[in-house]
Amino acid sequence: MDAGLFTANNVWMMVATALVFFMHTGFAFLEIGLTRSKNTINILFKNIFIITVGLLLYYAWGFNMMYPGFEDGSSGIFGFAGFGIGAPENGMTPGYADGGYTWWTDFLFQGMFAATAATIVSGAVAERMKIGAFMIFTVLYVGLVYPIVGAWKWGGGFLDSWGFYDFAGSTLVHSVGGWAALVAIYLLGSRIGKFGEDGKPKAIPGHSIPLATAGVLILWLGWFGFNGGSVLSADPELTSLVLVTTSLSAAAGGIAAMVLSYILYKNLDLTMFLNGILGGLVGITAGADQMSPDNAIVIGLLSGIIIVLGVALVDKLKLDDPVGAVAVHLICGIWGTLAVGIFGKMASGAQFMTQLYGVLIIGAFCIVTSGIIIGALKAITGIRVSKEEEIEGLDLHEHGMDAYPDFMND
Amino acid sequence: MDAGLFTANNVWMMVATALVFFMHTGFAFLEIGLTRSKNTINILFKNIFIITVGLLLYYAWGFNMMYPGFEDGSSGIFGFAGFGIGAPENGMTPGYADGGYTWWTDFLFQGMFAATAATIVSGAVAERMKIGAFMIFTVLYVGLVYPIVGAWKWGGGFLDSWGFYDFAGSTLVHSVGGWAALVAIYLLGSRIGKFGEDGKPKAIPGHSIPLATAGVLILWLGWFGFNGGSVLSADPELTSLVLVTTSLSAAAGGIAAMVLSYILYKNLDLTMFLNGILGGLVGITAGADQMSPDNAIVIGLLSGIIIVLGVALVDKLKLDDPVGAVAVHLICGIWGTLAVGIFGKMASGAQFMTQLYGVLIIGAFCIVTSGIIIGALKAITGIRVSKEEEIEGLDLHEHGMDAYPDFMND
Amino acid sequence: MDAGLFTANNVWMMVATALVFFMHTGFAFLEIGLTRSKNTINILFKNIFIITVGLLLYYAWGFNMMYPGFEDGSSGIFGFAGFGIGAPENGMTPGYADGGYTWWTDFLFQGMFAATAATIVSGAVAERMKIGAFMIFTVLYVGLVYPIVGAWKWGGGFLDSWGFYDFAGSTLVHSVGGWAALVAIYLLGSRIGKFGEDGKPKAIPGHSIPLATAGVLILWLGWFGFNGGSVLSADPELTSLVLVTTSLSAAAGGIAAMVLSYILYKNLDLTMFLNGILGGLVGITAGADQMSPDNAIVIGLLSGIIIVLGVALVDKLKLDDPVGAVAVHLICGIWGTLAVGIFGKMASGAQFMTQLYGVLIIGAFCIVTSGIIIGALKAITGIRVSKEEEIEGLDLHEHGMDAYPDFMND
Repeated sequence: MDAGLFTANNVWMMVATALVFFMHTGFAFLEIGLTRSKNTINILFKNIFIITVGLLLYYAWGFNMMYPGFEDGSSGIFGFAGFGIGAPENGMTPGYADGGYTWWTDFLFQGMFAATAATIVSGAVAERMKIGAFMIFTVLYVGLVYPIVGAWKWGGGFLDSWGFYDFAGSTLVHSVGGWAALVAIYLLGSRIGKFGEDGKPKAIPGHSIPLATAGVLILWLGWFGFNGGSVLSADPELTSLVLVTTSLSAAAGGIAAMVLSYILYKNLDLTMFLNGILGGLVGITAGADQMSPDNAIVIGLLSGIIIVLGVALVDKLKLDDPVGAVAVHLICGIWGTLAVGIFGKMASGAQFMTQLYGVLIIGAFCIVTSGIIIGALKAITGIRVSKEEEIEGLDLHEHGMDAYPDFMND
Repeated sequence: MDAGLFTANNVWMMVATALVFFMHTGFAFLEIGLTRSKNTINILFKNIFIITVGLLLYYAWGFNMMYPGFEDGSSGIFGFAGFGIGAPENGMTPGYADGGYTWWTDFLFQGMFAATAATIVSGAVAERMKIGAFMIFTVLYVGLVYPIVGAWKWGGGFLDSWGFYDFAGSTLVHSVGGWAALVAIYLLGSRIGKFGEDGKPKAIPGHSIPLATAGVLILWLGWFGFNGGSVLSADPELTSLVLVTTSLSAAAGGIAAMVLSYILYKNLDLTMFLNGILGGLVGITAGADQMSPDNAIVIGLLSGIIIVLGVALVDKLKLDDPVGAVAVHLICGIWGTLAVGIFGKMASGAQFMTQLYGVLIIGAFCIVTSGIIIGALKAITGIRVSKEEEIEGLDLHEHGMDAYPDFMND
Repeated sequence: MDAGLFTANNVWMMVATALVFFMHTGFAFLEIGLTRSKNTINILFKNIFIITVGLLLYYAWGFNMMYPGFEDGSSGIFGFAGFGIGAPENGMTPGYADGGYTWWTDFLFQGMFAATAATIVSGAVAERMKIGAFMIFTVLYVGLVYPIVGAWKWGGGFLDSWGFYDFAGSTLVHSVGGWAALVAIYLLGSRIGKFGEDGKPKAIPGHSIPLATAGVLILWLGWFGFNGGSVLSADPELTSLVLVTTSLSAAAGGIAAMVLSYILYKNLDLTMFLNGILGGLVGITAGADQMSPDNAIVIGLLSGIIIVLGVALVDKLKLDDPVGAVAVHLICGIWGTLAVGIFGKMASGAQFMTQLYGVLIIGAFCIVTSGIIIGALKAITGIRVSKEEEIEGLDLHEHGMDAYPDFMND
């Protein structure tokens, strides 16, 4: 491979890394925008903690737990190539990774992904979870669960050898976060006031819709890197196809959710519009490189419908998910993974079943591990703030600060 | 062409695509920042609608209406290459578009541009236009008017064969939006309270200057892709020249507007500073690849002066343009297009006249089409919200939500 | 060099330029977020002024003062290659700058850096400095002091020939800004209410922690370009190493500052967490290409500790630095420069001493020049706003506008 192609590939992968990093700004804006101002510092703190500690853990052992290079004959379930990220001899040459990038870029791109799983949980548990418990959960889930599961497919483990396909992580990133979000909100219980005495859900409006909207636009932008970088090179045909399928699915998801929520609730609901876009993004992620633009629009439209119904379902189950993380990341993550067996180049009954097995196995593992972690925290330290703290806001009690001291709060 | 160069070109065009996409965040921030908090959700909804529906329409038929490949002997006025974006056989090879990018990148880059025209109108009609009427207008203007006009030049139509030059869209994007903005605010009328009983304009201050400022900085950043990507390859000399002329014109436009408004009004006016930057960006857009850095600074300085005078002129005409869209996008768009005939490599009397013809023809077409669309909507459904709704805010009435429920609003 | 490699290099450098430009949004958000709402317009105005006037001055003479190409036998102290940026004959070919980029990219990348020095000062003097005095200071400091100092190392001047090393500007950018910040806050005095009658520092809380947090994340993102672009090509090994060391140092700096401030003050302090990240970024900047990932983590951890102690030291000295600019940019800038002599490939006692000489010489020059500029302004026009203006806010008095007219201010 000539130096020009190797360099161009690595440039694209560094750009993709930067864009995935920027997604953490998007997640932070989305989460604070959809929650109340009194818990803003707490959410920002969690997001900053996730990205910093996530990178350090991924450096310490995560990367080498996720990409262990299972040797022939290994089980493909768990491997570990040692602490740190010492580069292989050819790690900076086109001989590594088919010349798609250097070893350093490989680490950093994957490290930016790693933190995402915990970020998804952060939104779901917002406004009521103890910060200490969340920090411990983050360390364990990002540090251990995420790389173990990731190795099963992206590290060349047993799901990879079965033929399970997940291009950029509808399951490996989004569902992994989504399952833990589901477990966490079940164990935490709903926020005070979320369900009335009649058991009906009450809207608890988010305090800054501009930031929530900017968050979604930044996430969409970041997905150019999340999906576009998952080609693992700058291959012109594949990378540009992936950007097209990703953007069309996002657009279709938004329109579908907006229209359906208008039909059902007679309201032009911006939040649903935004969540529909996110649903379309999560839905296309597993097969963004396998789909035609037409396929992508269909997947996006169905993702948008799923979002509207999924949000209603979560409410009906009396679960309290302030940012809609379960509908967006878990349900659309599952849907996107299954869609690989239904649409596009890989569609077949057998592939569908393989996708389903992957979803179920990873789901079971995530439910069990997150259940153990959060359950143990609940038993030992408690995971929920006091009633007084919840009413007065986590910012004051956990961080001694107010996010907007110059403005009137509710 | 070797694979390295083709890949590097396509990487740059994908980056440019991402940056143009990010401009929609900039527009959204600018528009909500310069208007009142009670209409924030409405503006965000419009912007999200524009980008999602714009991409889908451009996929459905816009791209193939704009780049129809007029055959020899055709009129060069209207062409259509069929629904969808089925790629040509060589669409993913260096044989397409001189190896500047793939067909998929071509579609997505142009698709991100398409939505911009309606965004410009969104700002001008803010705080008083019915959402349903705006959505219908957007579909028709982005879906039909924009690609038809674009084809005249960028699709190789009759203006292109005349020698009309518009590098990145001072006319084809900004004026196209600007003319419709002018027609719309004329038909809509001014906001309640904008002109006092004495007929004098009253300032209606925007509710978040930080977001407006961030919007301008994001737009400037996005212009790296808007102009830099309009080279349609990563040609090192041309792309880097374009970034230099674009940034110098932006800087000069800002300084000129700031200084002139200080001289005229004795105030260090941040909003005028920001609009001067935008004026400089719009002004350089038609000829960013034809100008020396010195030319760019002159064009920028004149753009900044035009902004200050243009804003005053719009006020004098008793037109109500909350974000200054007419001065920025229409007047500076015209100015930038004419400047191609005055400064830089293409300057000549004949070129100036060709530029003027292009401006006039496109202006006439946009006035007529936007007049028909908005006029028909006014006659059939009405385009203006009720007085009560305008006073209480569009967020409550059109979307049933408040953008900042935790804070006191006016 | 083949066209593919040259193009890929230049693409990366243009991306880096865009990212450094975006840092100005990050600085603006950080500064307004950490100060009071009544001074928001003023801070935004300063930041917009800095980037626009900075680019124009760098075009007018700065670039040619900083990269004068000292001829053999010159003193290496001051050179000037003439006004404007007329390109050399080979400026657009791989023959220029080893094919790392074109002359235009070179100018724009360095121009985006130039404005940073004044931005650092802007934060430190916030909420009490006259806008006119600040504007004059900016013109002189960005226009003259920054390029003169920069030439000593990056222009091939005497510090470069001594072997002083500063990869991306821990000293040449951050300390240069930091020294002037220190001088300015000494000459300005503290804000009303910052130190009580007992002499103890009182917290003056910033008005928007979400924007401050976003600012830090945007700055981290921008540092991908600031450090990654300072390789001056897209060399795959070096650029990707630099992104890894930069990100790991940022993460370690944040964690260290967060943990230490928790130990000392028993509070999970988001502001300290954020400043720790910035400290880690500044600290790694001088040697980002010389360090292993392990080195980077150590440098980051120490930067985070330095931040917590540095902020306390500034308070103890009764200096009022609203955004922590002295601790972040000056102290961590010095630390990062010295660290090149302690860690990584260049570590040696001799190198450490060379680094120290560079720090001291540049420090002395910056103290003297900024002292003369600000001292003269203080004597002639005054640098501090009236007591009434400080209490009512600079926005109203200097700009006749309010940043958030729809919300209650304090």
